[in-house]
Amino acid sequence: MRGEIITIGEELLCGRVLNLNAWYASCRLSAMGFHVTAIATVGDRAEDVRRVVELALDRSDFLIVTGGLGTTDDDITTKTVAELFGRPLTLDRFLLDHIRQEVQKQDLLWNDDLEKLAWLPKGARLMDPEPKACGYYLEEKGHPVFFLPGVPEEMRLLLDKFIIPHLQALQSGKTYYATRTLKLFGIREDKVGTLLKGLGRDVPDLIIGYYPNFPEVHVVFTARGEDSALLDSIVADAEKAAEEKIGPYIVARDEETLEQTVGKLLLNHKMNLAVAESCTGGLICHRLTEVSGSSEYFERGFIVYSDRSKMEELGVPMEVLTNHGAVSAPTAEAMAQGVCRVSDTSLGLSATGIAGPTGGTPDKPVGTVYIGMATARGVVSKGYRFFGNRSQVKQMSASMALDWIRRFLTGDSFFHRL
Amino acid sequence: MRGEIITIGEELLCGRVLNLNAWYASCRLSAMGFHVTAIATVGDRAEDVRRVVELALDRSDFLIVTGGLGTTDDDITTKTVAELFGRPLTLDRFLLDHIRQEVQKQDLLWNDDLEKLAWLPKGARLMDPEPKACGYYLEEKGHPVFFLPGVPEEMRLLLDKFIIPHLQALQSGKTYYATRTLKLFGIREDKVGTLLKGLGRDVPDLIIGYYPNFPEVHVVFTARGEDSALLDSIVADAEKAAEEKIGPYIVARDEETLEQTVGKLLLNHKMNLAVAESCTGGLICHRLTEVSGSSEYFERGFIVYSDRSKMEELGVPMEVLTNHGAVSAPTAEAMAQGVCRVSDTSLGLSATGIAGPTGGTPDKPVGTVYIGMATARGVVSKGYRFFGNRSQVKQMSASMALDWIRRFLTGDSFFHRL
Repeated sequence: MRGEIITIGEELLCGRVLNLNAWYASCRLSAMGFHVTAIATVGDRAEDVRRVVELALDRSDFLIVTGGLGTTDDDITTKTVAELFGRPLTLDRFLLDHIRQEVQKQDLLWNDDLEKLAWLPKGARLMDPEPKACGYYLEEKGHPVFFLPGVPEEMRLLLDKFIIPHLQALQSGKTYYATRTLKLFGIREDKVGTLLKGLGRDVPDLIIGYYPNFPEVHVVFTARGEDSALLDSIVADAEKAAEEKIGPYIVARDEETLEQTVGKLLLNHKMNLAVAESCTGGLICHRLTEVSGSSEYFERGFIVYSDRSKMEELGVPMEVLTNHGAVSAPTAEAMAQGVCRVSDTSLGLSATGIAGPTGGTPDKPVGTVYIGMATARGVVSKGYRFFGNRSQVKQMSASMALDWIRRFLTGDSFFHRL
Repeated sequence: MRGEIITIGEELLCGRVLNLNAWYASCRLSAMGFHVTAIATVGDRAEDVRRVVELALDRSDFLIVTGGLGTTDDDITTKTVAELFGRPLTLDRFLLDHIRQEVQKQDLLWNDDLEKLAWLPKGARLMDPEPKACGYYLEEKGHPVFFLPGVPEEMRLLLDKFIIPHLQALQSGKTYYATRTLKLFGIREDKVGTLLKGLGRDVPDLIIGYYPNFPEVHVVFTARGEDSALLDSIVADAEKAAEEKIGPYIVARDEETLEQTVGKLLLNHKMNLAVAESCTGGLICHRLTEVSGSSEYFERGFIVYSDRSKMEELGVPMEVLTNHGAVSAPTAEAMAQGVCRVSDTSLGLSATGIAGPTGGTPDKPVGTVYIGMATARGVVSKGYRFFGNRSQVKQMSASMALDWIRRFLTGDSFFHRL
């Protein structure tokens, strides 16, 4: 089944609000095997709403319209489609009662404008009336047209709980969908393309996409068809073939993150971790602790922004800072060893660099970053030159540092000293 | 001038990629006084591209098309508009040379597919050819039509550096735009609406919007018209009136962030800061260090995830942890005092709580968070109950902790002991 999404609201056209409703709906519908063929966004002008609804209805099996259902004068969706479809507005008494009860329950003041919400185009039926979410649908030219509030929570609720099951029930000759995302770090998108060239060319149902998702590159395999078991094996075969080419760069799959991968590896190896951050300013620890259960392997972290704190907290020798500078391999190594010793963990990780935009020198330009890692057996470090703004340098550095743990625990030869 | 934005790409329709290009373009164009009347997204099918381009051109003064300009078979934008506009594809030798040079410079392999990039519809002119960003434009039915790559960095560069100046030069009878964003924290959206009710009702050119932007609420004043000085004063008046009602909740304005506000206040008060984080896991320090120049006031931070680290690094007494627990007011206070003493800073900030989803108890459910703050004069703490998932509890806690500094340095009476 092919459908279109129409989102209505001036705030979406002047950029004040990011159109997450269209994104969410397209994600969910695609994942369920429905084909979204177009998304249109228009403002609060009846003429524009009329035009996009009319056009979309001509070309689609279903239509989802969000926004413009509120109480104010610029909420014109219901009135406009009532006119367009030749369906007079009629009062839905059940809905009106429901709104009155909600107002009472939430201790709000009744406002006559609220009655407007209960006047629907003739023949419209309420979606399951969850509190606060008053969407409705109707059938026009044999196609279902769904009207949803623009409030993201309400829109998502009705989409998931009502629209998708409704469409699934209508669908005959079911289409399935299998998908797998490989998340790569440390490799450029064009290199991924070169390495995977030709992959899946002989499998007509398979689509392969490369998507930069800074600082990662995501490779997505998607198969759509009628035999769900076949689709799963198509995607699994493609994943296996890809692994042979880009295996070392895969840091996570599907919904998983690099920090989850790292957490699992640390648990498997019964290791625990302490982190010393300078240029990353807490981002490495923040990412590690986004994972529920991270307290099982993450012991503590230090954000040693000043030279003084590097010395006092981690015992970085003053001579190292004086002779090599805070941004140097010896400092990164001293930080990693220091944090490991101070915290009594089996692994110590460090990052020190120049995030910018100021602080760069000809010798050590903005983006110069050293990563260090220590275990009881020794210490390694390496310098990098990252590109981008302050925030991007922090992100690249944090991903690189986290990926060091993954590579170390999966046996990368770079870490032979540890 | 009224314009439309067309974004092309299957990845935008199946939800794999969030349409940030349309969002960015609509933001920038609106801010410059251009009126975006519609945004359309279609996939890589010639028929759909043709239809939206044709329709948009009929109704607009200008048109911006992004995506589908690459080298692969599914990049059909150029070929499709060449046919639609009856302009044969012609080889742009300057562009071809430029691409060859780039390939050489970046040490990539030449690929015959790359030549496709240099075949443009007859009459098309290159936008200023910055490296890697090969957009072009042409005039059709008297209206400029701009074609941009879908890569966000390239698209943004060409929009800002070429399209907007180009449109400004074309514009006659200029429309201006004044806007101001107030960023609020610690107040619910409905409360903001109640407090600001009636504001600006007598000013026809003024639009006021409330936008939840977790964990903040943003209030945006926008005025559009022909007298730029008048618009500025309309927005300034509205801002002043709003300040009287919601002043204490304003944590930042326009592009500024709460952490920038905090940084400025610390600099003004010649204070420096150390942070002890438990449940926020590094997020407070990460946000503080997103600000360039934060090393002038941010001394160091501790992520004391374990009880042991709270005792060892910050001297939190074992009795406090045993008697009150790690998530308690006494622990938050001991952390704030400890980090202040250890770091020898004028201000110490702490957060300890249960981010979830596990670890909650009937007594201290998930979302229970204590914030602490210490100076040489004493210490204060307070407990909160935040709602949401792990990431949201971390965000709320970090914003609350940072906002404590703002409120302390702007004289909030809660901090009378400090």
